[in-house]
Amino acid sequence: MYVIMKNKIINNRLNHIGPNFSLHYNEPIHLVKSKGMYLYDINGKKYLDAIGNINIVGHCNDHVVESIYKQASILNTNTRYLYNIMEEYSEKLLKYFPKKLSVIYFVCSGSEANDLALRMANNFTNGSEYIVIDNAYHGHTDSLINLSPYKFKSKGGQGRNSNVHILDMPDAVRGKYRFNENQWINKYINEGKELIDNVAFNKKISAFFSESILGCGGQIILPPNYLKQIFNKIKSNNGVCVSDEVQTGFGRIGKNFWAFEEQKVIPDICTVGKPMGNGHPIAAVITTREIADSFNNGMEYFNSFGGNPVSLAAGKAVLEVIENNKLQENAQKIGNYLKIKFNDLKNKFPDKICDVRGEGLFIGVDLVEKGNPDLPDSKIANFIINHSKKLGLLLSTDGPYDNVVKIKPPLIINIDEANYLIECLDKSINYYINNNI
Amino acid sequence: MYVIMKNKIINNRLNHIGPNFSLHYNEPIHLVKSKGMYLYDINGKKYLDAIGNINIVGHCNDHVVESIYKQASILNTNTRYLYNIMEEYSEKLLKYFPKKLSVIYFVCSGSEANDLALRMANNFTNGSEYIVIDNAYHGHTDSLINLSPYKFKSKGGQGRNSNVHILDMPDAVRGKYRFNENQWINKYINEGKELIDNVAFNKKISAFFSESILGCGGQIILPPNYLKQIFNKIKSNNGVCVSDEVQTGFGRIGKNFWAFEEQKVIPDICTVGKPMGNGHPIAAVITTREIADSFNNGMEYFNSFGGNPVSLAAGKAVLEVIENNKLQENAQKIGNYLKIKFNDLKNKFPDKICDVRGEGLFIGVDLVEKGNPDLPDSKIANFIINHSKKLGLLLSTDGPYDNVVKIKPPLIINIDEANYLIECLDKSINYYINNNI
Repeated sequence: MYVIMKNKIINNRLNHIGPNFSLHYNEPIHLVKSKGMYLYDINGKKYLDAIGNINIVGHCNDHVVESIYKQASILNTNTRYLYNIMEEYSEKLLKYFPKKLSVIYFVCSGSEANDLALRMANNFTNGSEYIVIDNAYHGHTDSLINLSPYKFKSKGGQGRNSNVHILDMPDAVRGKYRFNENQWINKYINEGKELIDNVAFNKKISAFFSESILGCGGQIILPPNYLKQIFNKIKSNNGVCVSDEVQTGFGRIGKNFWAFEEQKVIPDICTVGKPMGNGHPIAAVITTREIADSFNNGMEYFNSFGGNPVSLAAGKAVLEVIENNKLQENAQKIGNYLKIKFNDLKNKFPDKICDVRGEGLFIGVDLVEKGNPDLPDSKIANFIINHSKKLGLLLSTDGPYDNVVKIKPPLIINIDEANYLIECLDKSINYYINNNI
Repeated sequence: MYVIMKNKIINNRLNHIGPNFSLHYNEPIHLVKSKGMYLYDINGKKYLDAIGNINIVGHCNDHVVESIYKQASILNTNTRYLYNIMEEYSEKLLKYFPKKLSVIYFVCSGSEANDLALRMANNFTNGSEYIVIDNAYHGHTDSLINLSPYKFKSKGGQGRNSNVHILDMPDAVRGKYRFNENQWINKYINEGKELIDNVAFNKKISAFFSESILGCGGQIILPPNYLKQIFNKIKSNNGVCVSDEVQTGFGRIGKNFWAFEEQKVIPDICTVGKPMGNGHPIAAVITTREIADSFNNGMEYFNSFGGNPVSLAAGKAVLEVIENNKLQENAQKIGNYLKIKFNDLKNKFPDKICDVRGEGLFIGVDLVEKGNPDLPDSKIANFIINHSKKLGLLLSTDGPYDNVVKIKPPLIINIDEANYLIECLDKSINYYINNNI
């Protein structure tokens, strides 16, 4: 019976759903339930979710679900009308931003947010050139694929457009310059500045898009001063700095609510998405009065669903849960604990793990052969996530070599669950070694 | 107290929300509740909603709200997992499409849908040129603004890109060729074909994007045979035909579920959105196996929220309500009745109304001076919608001259409400005339 159901649901995917929507794991999981830190499959198997970055306050959180239900029962409409929840949520959300970032555009997805940021930057600067960091992913719209080396350099990609310019990832472990090299950070900064000046020499820069911790790049922490220096150079060339907080925002990184704060910069435009509604489709662009007023050039911006009362209720509830349950603090506490324990694992398996990095609950474990960062090992990374799945733990891989195990659980994870996570990783690596896989 | 609240909510909009999000009406409405056909403001005033095209099965429909609540309580995740509602809804939705359109990509908004359609067309054809109909609006992403004469030709727009080619609106009333002219339809068709051949002469066509009733163009019904002939010409030049059903889909036009069916064509790609989740953010691209397989070129398509179980539950519930309450039939019945009654008004005010057009509950009333189609009158159109608002009826205006009163209510509208709608329009025009406004 189970096999028949499984075949049926797989056949439906194959027959009816876009084939480049991919499925996790060698054996995809057929889910029937989710709650808190856990997902449950059709056989009753329970999985600790260590990759549920969207469901930031835990799956099916009661307060979020009830808030959606309540608002959906009372009023759902669009931004061409006035309603209270817009005022309540926008004021609450803006408290998390530096004063300079004071105007919100509500949209439906991180991609819509970055696409709108791009339009705003083009409008504000009249520029044509874009600067991005290598291996970045900023969204799936036509224009954003062109700003995403993660996509355009990979299989099926069309390569780099001539108006898109790529900064090297300032990767301390595997990059062109490394942490054990003299002046390694300044080398990245100086090369970056030089590239920007060259671009600006005879063309106009529109925007620099970056995450403040490089997610698809493999959880790369930007070195101190890097973003500040690059921002300054962009600004001195009249470009706009966009901080993409779609993966890193809302307290996930622990010490700060947004990753750009860790870098001691303030962007001109900040985009947020994924966890903003705990799975409900909501995202936003937050920018300065100056950029917003310039964008208000006579063309209306209307988004059928962006800023609807139900989405705003979801967003507001998420902030309330983060606040009431001190989830940012928990992200820092458990994140620090996990990093210590992952470093213990690194010491235990120095041949396999060459680096543990990240902030809060946005962590990467970098897998290699022979302890050599120049031998990134996607095979063991892939084994770990599939073996952990058998053990009831969900992880994923990322980075340009697909060798970084990514840990980005809901922020409600507790110490026991963190220990289970470590245990599964430990067991998976042990199994891999002992069975000569 | 009310004035203070009103000032507070308006100040919030001015201070915190993107200034080019516009508000309806000279005096914006502060809403607190919506149910069925009605919206309620903070003073308890009730408005019959004749423009609620998104809330197609009525505001806060119980079945839709309960379905969202139920699914949000049980499981919300993303398309990298398998879950039953994906199978249930996709099979149900595909039954409404011709067999040829068999593969779905779920996304969050009509803009995401059209943007994805564009990427698919580019991928399939390797083409660089786009054909659109004048005054069309296909979405707010960077790439789609360029395909939307409604935007790029208007205030704040950057004008036409050289790879975008515009067909005249085959407007029987105000167009270059009119219904009383010999061979008027063929003239549009022949000029369209000629333009397409010229474009294809030394460049490659990617896609022809069109609605099958022109919404932002002013509810223009395409003449018989027009779309068929244009589609054939596009196809003979290896371009892809995209039918944008974001405004017209889901039974609104009465006789058929999709507007392209009325035109007896089958597009290569169909995009749907707005009413799909009755206000919940969901949209989709539906295409052929051939195009989907070509798009599956190694690049994953992932959309954080597109195809999540809660959005699919909303979509499924909407189809169930449309079916169980025979709303497509109601759209046809009330739509026909309204058109008869609007034509009576046209006979009563031949100087003011020059045309009544549309299908089902997607209707336009074209306002002019002196009964002359070449004197489109946005002033009276604007007066009508603001005066009707005072009478408790919500209407909007559209079209290149903003002189077309648009009627696109939820499909649950009954005969009494239709009569009230007529009455308000009648009263508004009378008031305008009698008071020499």
